[in-house]
Amino acid sequence: MSGGIEVVGIEKLKPLLDKQEVLAAVRDALILQSAGKVRSPLPGQLLFEKPHGDCHIKYGHVEGSSTFAIKVATGFYENPAKGLPANHGLVMVWDAATGAPRVLLNDEGWLTAWRTAAATAIAAKALAPAQMSRVGIVGTGLQASLAVEWLVETLGDQAFVIWGRDPAKAMSLADQHTATGRTVSSVKRIEDLLHTCNVIVTATPSKSALFSGDAVRAGTHVVGIGADSPGKQELPSELFARASCILTDDSNQCLDHGDYGCAVRAGVVGKGRDIMLGEVLAERVRIDRKADDTTIADLTGIAAEDIAIAGLFCEKLAA
Amino acid sequence: MSGGIEVVGIEKLKPLLDKQEVLAAVRDALILQSAGKVRSPLPGQLLFEKPHGDCHIKYGHVEGSSTFAIKVATGFYENPAKGLPANHGLVMVWDAATGAPRVLLNDEGWLTAWRTAAATAIAAKALAPAQMSRVGIVGTGLQASLAVEWLVETLGDQAFVIWGRDPAKAMSLADQHTATGRTVSSVKRIEDLLHTCNVIVTATPSKSALFSGDAVRAGTHVVGIGADSPGKQELPSELFARASCILTDDSNQCLDHGDYGCAVRAGVVGKGRDIMLGEVLAERVRIDRKADDTTIADLTGIAAEDIAIAGLFCEKLAA
Repeated sequence: MSGGIEVVGIEKLKPLLDKQEVLAAVRDALILQSAGKVRSPLPGQLLFEKPHGDCHIKYGHVEGSSTFAIKVATGFYENPAKGLPANHGLVMVWDAATGAPRVLLNDEGWLTAWRTAAATAIAAKALAPAQMSRVGIVGTGLQASLAVEWLVETLGDQAFVIWGRDPAKAMSLADQHTATGRTVSSVKRIEDLLHTCNVIVTATPSKSALFSGDAVRAGTHVVGIGADSPGKQELPSELFARASCILTDDSNQCLDHGDYGCAVRAGVVGKGRDIMLGEVLAERVRIDRKADDTTIADLTGIAAEDIAIAGLFCEKLAA
Repeated sequence: MSGGIEVVGIEKLKPLLDKQEVLAAVRDALILQSAGKVRSPLPGQLLFEKPHGDCHIKYGHVEGSSTFAIKVATGFYENPAKGLPANHGLVMVWDAATGAPRVLLNDEGWLTAWRTAAATAIAAKALAPAQMSRVGIVGTGLQASLAVEWLVETLGDQAFVIWGRDPAKAMSLADQHTATGRTVSSVKRIEDLLHTCNVIVTATPSKSALFSGDAVRAGTHVVGIGADSPGKQELPSELFARASCILTDDSNQCLDHGDYGCAVRAGVVGKGRDIMLGEVLAERVRIDRKADDTTIADLTGIAAEDIAIAGLFCEKLAA
C-alpha cells in the first residue's frame, strides 16, 4: 500500500503469467466487446515527433463489473538505440462503486504486450487456413518476438519466417527462437516471406503499407497488429478490397486507429465490411473459409483486453 | 521507488501547499493554453449511473517540456452519504523523451481540487466588479468550501454567502468558515444569494440550470465550475445571451463539456462568443467592464492546470 493505492511491480507479475489463462481472458474480452458489454470510449493519445513516440490511454468498464480500468502504454521507437525498452506502461484498477483507485499494476508495458500477443494468437487461429505452409512475422520488435511464442499456443508448432527492415535484427531474433527449439528462420527480402507463408502477422510501427496488395498469395490470412494510431498503416488498402473476410477487434476503433480505417478512407471498402472478432469467437457469426480466400484481422488493441488481463492478474495476486 | 515509478502520497503533498505558488502556476497554465502551447486532447471520461459518478482523464504536453502528465479524477456523489470523500484522483508524470513513467502523485484528488480552486479565484478576480457587494457560493461540497478559502487570496477579505439544496449543509459550511475568522453566512433561498451578491461561484454537479437567467442582477460576475462533463449544466443559457463577456478556460473544451456549450447548443449564443481566460490574464485582450455588465467565466478544468500543479509539486519535492 502506498497512500491508499496498492502498487504491484512487474517482478510480481511475471511469475504469474500463464499463457492459456491470458488467452482465455482475452478471448472473453473480445466476445464481451462484440456483444456491446464494454463501455470504452475511443483511446486517448498523445503523439510525439522528437523523439518519435506515442502514448495511448485505454479505459473502460465492463457491464456489471465492480471495477473499471485505465491503461497507459507508451511506445518510444528510438529507445532501443539508446539501450532502453521501446515500451512502457501501467494499468490502474479503480473501484466502480466509490471511484477510489485500488491497484496500480506497474507492469512496464508487459500486460499490454501479453494481451496483444494473446489477441494476435487468437485472431490468427480464428481464420487460419486448414493447411498452414509457414507462418510469417513482419517486424523484429518485442511484439514480433512474442507473436512467435504465443502463436505456438493456438496454432501448434509451425515453421516461422521473420522479416525486418534490418536483416541483422531478423536473423538475431530467428536465432533466439531457434535456440529455444522452435523452427524459425529469417529472410532478407519480404517477398520471400510473402511467397512462402499463408499466415502472416505484421507488428511494426510503420506509417505506410509494408508491401503491395497483390504480393500476398491467395489463401493467406493476414493479422495486422502494428497500426494502432491514426497515421499508422501496415497493410495495403488493396488487400482489404481482395479480402473475403475482414475481422476487427472493434469496428469503431479500427475505423479510427487501424489499417481498416485506412482502407475505408482510401475508398476501397465500405464502413460496414468488417466483422468483430468476438462475433466469430462466440460463434454468433460463422465464416466458411475457402482454400483460396484471403482474409485479414485488424487489431488495434482494446480497453476490454486491458481490463481482462488486469482483472486476471488482480485475481491471481489475491489468490 | 516502486517498480521504477516514484509514488508520492497526499501526506507528503499537503505540507507543500502554498496557495500563491499554485495561483501563479495555474495562471501561467491558462496563458499557455490560450497561446496554443499545450497539446491536450479532449478529456477522456466514463460516466456511471449506479452509483452516480464520473471519471475524467485529462492529459497533455506543454511545448518543449521534458515531461507530460496524465491526471485521473473521479467524483462519486453518493460517497459522502457513506462517509467517504466524493473525490479521488492522481496525477502521473511521464518522461517525454523515453515514455517512461516517472512520478505518481497519489494526491487523492487534492491537486485537482487545489488547481480548480486556484482557477476559480483567478477567474473571479479577472472580471470582478470594482465594487463588490457580497460573494455568493452555490454548492456545499469540497470545491465550494475551497472557493471561500482561495477567493480570499485574489479578492481579499469579502463577505461570503453560501446556498445549497440542503440548508443544513450550507449552514454547517458557513459555520466552519466563520470559526476561522471569515465573514460567511448561509441563506435558505437561492434568491437571497442572487439578490445580494455580485460575484457568484457555482460549484455543484447539477444537470440543469440552478436559477433563471433574469434572477441574476446586472453587474454580476458569475463563475461556473461545476459543469465539466457533457450532460452537466449549472448556468441558465439565457445568462449567456445577456453576458457582455464570456470567459472560458478553453474554448473547445467548454463547448464540449461546459455551460458555454449548453448555451451554444440552446442557440442563444454563437460559437465564437467566448474569450479564453488566458488571453485576458496575458493582457492580449483587455475587457472594459462597465458597472452594469453581466459577465461569465465558464471553467471546465484543463489538463494544462494539472500539468502545471504536478510540475510545481514535483519541483518542490525535489527541492
